[in-house]
Amino acid sequence: MTDSRAMARAILLSRRGFPAPNPHVGCVIVRDGEIVGEGWHRFAGGPHAEAEALAAAGERARGATAYVTLEPCNHHGRTPPCSQALIRAGVARVVVACRDPNPVAAGGLEALRSAGVTVETGLMADEAAEANWRFLTAMRLGRPVVVAKAAMSADGRIALPSGESRWITGPAARRAGHRLRAEMGSVLVGRVTAERDDPLLTARIPGVRNQPLRIVLDPAGRLPSGLRVFDGSAPTVRVTEGPVAGSLAVGRDPRGGLNLRALMAELFRRGVTGVLVEGGGRTIASFLRAGLVDRLELFVAPALLLDGLPAVLGEAPGSLESAPRGRWVSVRRAGPDLRLTLDLEGMGETDPCPER
Amino acid sequence: MTDSRAMARAILLSRRGFPAPNPHVGCVIVRDGEIVGEGWHRFAGGPHAEAEALAAAGERARGATAYVTLEPCNHHGRTPPCSQALIRAGVARVVVACRDPNPVAAGGLEALRSAGVTVETGLMADEAAEANWRFLTAMRLGRPVVVAKAAMSADGRIALPSGESRWITGPAARRAGHRLRAEMGSVLVGRVTAERDDPLLTARIPGVRNQPLRIVLDPAGRLPSGLRVFDGSAPTVRVTEGPVAGSLAVGRDPRGGLNLRALMAELFRRGVTGVLVEGGGRTIASFLRAGLVDRLELFVAPALLLDGLPAVLGEAPGSLESAPRGRWVSVRRAGPDLRLTLDLEGMGETDPCPER
Repeated sequence: MTDSRAMARAILLSRRGFPAPNPHVGCVIVRDGEIVGEGWHRFAGGPHAEAEALAAAGERARGATAYVTLEPCNHHGRTPPCSQALIRAGVARVVVACRDPNPVAAGGLEALRSAGVTVETGLMADEAAEANWRFLTAMRLGRPVVVAKAAMSADGRIALPSGESRWITGPAARRAGHRLRAEMGSVLVGRVTAERDDPLLTARIPGVRNQPLRIVLDPAGRLPSGLRVFDGSAPTVRVTEGPVAGSLAVGRDPRGGLNLRALMAELFRRGVTGVLVEGGGRTIASFLRAGLVDRLELFVAPALLLDGLPAVLGEAPGSLESAPRGRWVSVRRAGPDLRLTLDLEGMGETDPCPER
Repeated sequence: MTDSRAMARAILLSRRGFPAPNPHVGCVIVRDGEIVGEGWHRFAGGPHAEAEALAAAGERARGATAYVTLEPCNHHGRTPPCSQALIRAGVARVVVACRDPNPVAAGGLEALRSAGVTVETGLMADEAAEANWRFLTAMRLGRPVVVAKAAMSADGRIALPSGESRWITGPAARRAGHRLRAEMGSVLVGRVTAERDDPLLTARIPGVRNQPLRIVLDPAGRLPSGLRVFDGSAPTVRVTEGPVAGSLAVGRDPRGGLNLRALMAELFRRGVTGVLVEGGGRTIASFLRAGLVDRLELFVAPALLLDGLPAVLGEAPGSLESAPRGRWVSVRRAGPDLRLTLDLEGMGETDPCPER
């Protein structure tokens, strides 16, 4: 068991959880070339990866090496600090892929070193950062990462003129959409979509313990409370322009509409690290105009609607040069549909894994 | 040199030419395990692949095996029949991938057999048929193959509301578009695109000898003759509804607009085997509504326009079930853009390579 193989395993494990808004963390403990314990952070509020792995290893952790995808935390949150647990268990060496950019949680490496544990950082940092894209990017930007998602026809429509939209894409694309909801930790829709589609906005796939926060834009606070998004089955935030009882008032953007930057700042303050904007087209366009979309996930059906509701609809830029632009980072199949991932410019320009 | 390697080489060579409206053909002649001659059909009116390969082989063709991607022709067209040339050169064995579905040209295999030449068919037939998709599909359908092409933003727009469209996609996508023009052998645009963009519609890439036929839809015959498409640098057909001097009148479709089926029938009668429909959105939609689009080639920029001219715009189907639908057959990169290929349903259901 080489260092790289152990860390690759830890990264693989880290991806299994739905820990939003927390980071993904995986941990593998190796003694005498054998894995003696492993774990991952499964859900926010649940045991940390290191605690799981140490529990599995028991006495075999003494003198062992722990491979952790993110710097072990050093603070008392909902669980005790992992750095202390590693020290207490007698782990001799800790190999970390990425340092934790969250100032509240960081400091674990220093604590380990002070206790005489050998510490190394930076192994497979790129792969670990990729698995932790939501969390690390949010920490870097100081706001939640925003992913806009659309399930559309090959000609860019999300519904027929009649409003019929079920289903343009297939079951595999819908499952991937539910996974994105759980992965991002919150889901946002505009007023028209909330009213027209009456979506539940929950992540209905196995392994999800914490349902994503549901966020509904409702500028005037007039959406009927009988909508499914207000059914209490998961936490919901109603976003209004001015003060309305039980809502989050974010004020008006100078260019019109809700102040989305203020909304993002408040969500971040509340611990939200990712927002999945599910539509409709006008809501996605308003996030694009505000420069707030980091990634676009397009599920594209092998079908054409010829007319209907566009996936994105807003005020066009004054010229092609000023259009929002980025780069295609991934193309996958989702059953009969394609899944195209576009990272908007401004993203990924600095190292997502700090001080490696 | 195995049979398969020789045929693979012949198929590779066949792809080098721009022989539209003719089929792609490649030929490799092997004697004593060595290639002694090879050739391909470079352009309509030029030497056939077999003639090129036989010329290169000279006396070494005697007793050799010829690998040909399509059944050698047996008729006097612009060049003498290839079957006779192979017999005269003393070729002992001919291996053919696909039979020629064109009744005018077929009969080559029978002629070879009658002359005592050993004949085998079907080797790498799928690969050869793929390389000859335009020709074989046109023969099967009894009309030109129709490929619709759009260069669009990720949200399905081909121009800003101002009309600005240069350039949404990059140079690699534009080169691929020119190659498609040459490969299909004819290019079609609607009246609005002809007038607004004033395109030249030629294939400006190396290796193209015959410029594609330019086809302009001009129902009332009122497009100004000063447009670049009428500049005489390549043959052009103006398509009108009723009789107009110098135009091709196709009448009116019962559902409105030009009778596109009648147009396709007349083009096929004139020997056209492929049509690249380049837009605009209304023209592509009218071909889709007529059930005449076999393949869609979408070049998708990593950019968003938010509003503007849709890549496809027409009357929507009454329900999602009745929307034109197919399957994604290929995803490639074209510089910073994606190239997505969608084959519409009805395509490829029967064997494109007949009587293999």
